[in-house]
Amino acid sequence: MPESIPAGSVGLVTPQKKHFEEPIELACGKTLPQYDLVYETYGELNADHSNALLICHALSGDHHAAGYHSMEDPKPGWWENYIGPGKPFDTDRFYIVCPNNLGGCKGSTGPNSINPATGKFYGPDFPIVTVKDWVQSQKHLMHALGINQWAAIIGGSLGGMQVIQWAIDYPDRLRHALVIAAASRLSAQNIGFNEVARQAILSDPDYHGGHYYEQDVVPRRGLMLARMLGHITYLSDDAMRAQFGRELRTGRLSYDFDVQFQVESYLRYQGRSFVERFDANTYLLMTKALDYFDPASEYDNDLAAAFKRAQARFLVIAFTSDWRFSPARSREIVKALTDARRQVSYAEIESSEGHDAFLLPNDYYKDALAAYMDGVAKEAGG
Amino acid sequence: MPESIPAGSVGLVTPQKKHFEEPIELACGKTLPQYDLVYETYGELNADHSNALLICHALSGDHHAAGYHSMEDPKPGWWENYIGPGKPFDTDRFYIVCPNNLGGCKGSTGPNSINPATGKFYGPDFPIVTVKDWVQSQKHLMHALGINQWAAIIGGSLGGMQVIQWAIDYPDRLRHALVIAAASRLSAQNIGFNEVARQAILSDPDYHGGHYYEQDVVPRRGLMLARMLGHITYLSDDAMRAQFGRELRTGRLSYDFDVQFQVESYLRYQGRSFVERFDANTYLLMTKALDYFDPASEYDNDLAAAFKRAQARFLVIAFTSDWRFSPARSREIVKALTDARRQVSYAEIESSEGHDAFLLPNDYYKDALAAYMDGVAKEAGG
Repeated sequence: MPESIPAGSVGLVTPQKKHFEEPIELACGKTLPQYDLVYETYGELNADHSNALLICHALSGDHHAAGYHSMEDPKPGWWENYIGPGKPFDTDRFYIVCPNNLGGCKGSTGPNSINPATGKFYGPDFPIVTVKDWVQSQKHLMHALGINQWAAIIGGSLGGMQVIQWAIDYPDRLRHALVIAAASRLSAQNIGFNEVARQAILSDPDYHGGHYYEQDVVPRRGLMLARMLGHITYLSDDAMRAQFGRELRTGRLSYDFDVQFQVESYLRYQGRSFVERFDANTYLLMTKALDYFDPASEYDNDLAAAFKRAQARFLVIAFTSDWRFSPARSREIVKALTDARRQVSYAEIESSEGHDAFLLPNDYYKDALAAYMDGVAKEAGG
Repeated sequence: MPESIPAGSVGLVTPQKKHFEEPIELACGKTLPQYDLVYETYGELNADHSNALLICHALSGDHHAAGYHSMEDPKPGWWENYIGPGKPFDTDRFYIVCPNNLGGCKGSTGPNSINPATGKFYGPDFPIVTVKDWVQSQKHLMHALGINQWAAIIGGSLGGMQVIQWAIDYPDRLRHALVIAAASRLSAQNIGFNEVARQAILSDPDYHGGHYYEQDVVPRRGLMLARMLGHITYLSDDAMRAQFGRELRTGRLSYDFDVQFQVESYLRYQGRSFVERFDANTYLLMTKALDYFDPASEYDNDLAAAFKRAQARFLVIAFTSDWRFSPARSREIVKALTDARRQVSYAEIESSEGHDAFLLPNDYYKDALAAYMDGVAKEAGG
């Protein structure tokens, strides 16, 4: 817990919530008659409403991107490294909005919300949501906040996919698109890892077909496995070697199935702590949104044709050691954008930290973001 | 099932078994007072017993490396591509021995064997076995078969680790060491994947602390997850892209958690069929043997110092798209061998098939093996 709020932090923040009575039609064909979106904002909206940024979160992220919820909060929001006064997403210059996505588990309507039609938890009956659905709901939030156009939309990983979808679906609603450590669609290997994670949850006897809330249990084993596996794919082989090597937890081989190597201890800890803070039904939905994301599929599998609709200028960023969404996947996006004759800058950041690099401190990355966002701020008159 | 045995196959084979009454001391400090090893042989031992090859199996392999067990057998042994008359491991020239390792589940003493001391299944009480233990037991088998020195010992993946251990522990007992798609020790990432697989099994309620035989169940969910995950790491991203891409099983998105993409269908099938043929306790043991393998650790973490004991000539083979044990890991072995001034040849085989390439047909690989083994055969007078 911070004894005092560190300099460069937005400080104490309070999540806000909007209720939407207008039904939303989802890609799956179902309709949510009403829903809530919880979100945080940092900084001030300027007089002409031209300095608004939308931050989109990734698989296990939420609306709490920066600052602290209380003086007892043990850690700040997930992008504290890059959001705050004087930081690349500078709260002295921008008004920043970060929502929790539909289907989430942190306050926006999702499987662990009560379905008003039944008075019971949605659970597994919550519809499969897609990146397109999220972007649509974020547009409703945008209107509710009195914003007509985002100065920029920014996201890493699954967040970057939302940025791409925004640029294609609502081309005149954003001036800049920052797509970080993302891909235009998952590879078979990516889908394979997601499927193992899903099967871990679905096959956990405590999953109860998704109705575990009523049983007062959670599919702890399955969610823990899913998270352990996820973590391996977020880190590079080199980062794991540097961080853990073959270090033994107790200094000697135990010849049993207890924790032996530091890496096992780390993964079990990550798995266990995730279970305390995340919902298994939401995890399932998020992996499915990843699998289904494929904007080119609506344009004859031609990503450049999809991007022809876009008007935003793009900054695409990849990290050299990211093997989940490797630089090659970012270069596919850049190529499709240039084929579509869109404006795009590309930065391939040297990092040994794998996919997680988009969250971690890195001077080159920070400088690239800061330089680009300085231009965005000046355009916005800030 | 083969209507007739294909040309180039060793044909019908019958597994054999040796019982060892002499106790074997294991690296963990425990002793097995007696044990069985099941094995297959192909070809004929020559008069001076100089043409014997030992084939070591990998994680989910066994003693059935070539030929068919019956005319109803749906598929041949796991290395049928490379063992047989006229093939690189030429049964017209060599006498080939392939045992099932201690702790296995196909006839050698392991967790699913009856412990003579208790009259019950060993189950989780079967000691943790190491690569060093396997090599020791294989040496007892060697003596029982009247072989004094192997013309060559050959193995891929975990099999290649056994080859390395043989060359270090019993330097005068082999003339050639063929180390294929292996590593001198696991990386933290490798251990991480193994740990997820183990946790999947150990946390399955049907695991019953390893005593599932008595409950007449198997930890099916856990073993299935372990195998699905394993399969992703055996294939390259490119191979999965080529084989599955983003092909939909039914041609349309279903917006549920049923099988959607072909890759999911493949992984589920692989997982389910593995449960029918493999034992979960053995899987746990095999992953632990992988994690613990680290011959340099007995030589001050100096692999070259370990190899200074070796007398065999080495052929090291890696596959370009193998990310489980990448060519860089094989080059570490080659470097340590050259630092130790041992004789080593290295072949880096172009392949898009990932780690599985060591099992699959590939002309370059076949030619490299054939050329090397021709020299070995001539030396052996064959």
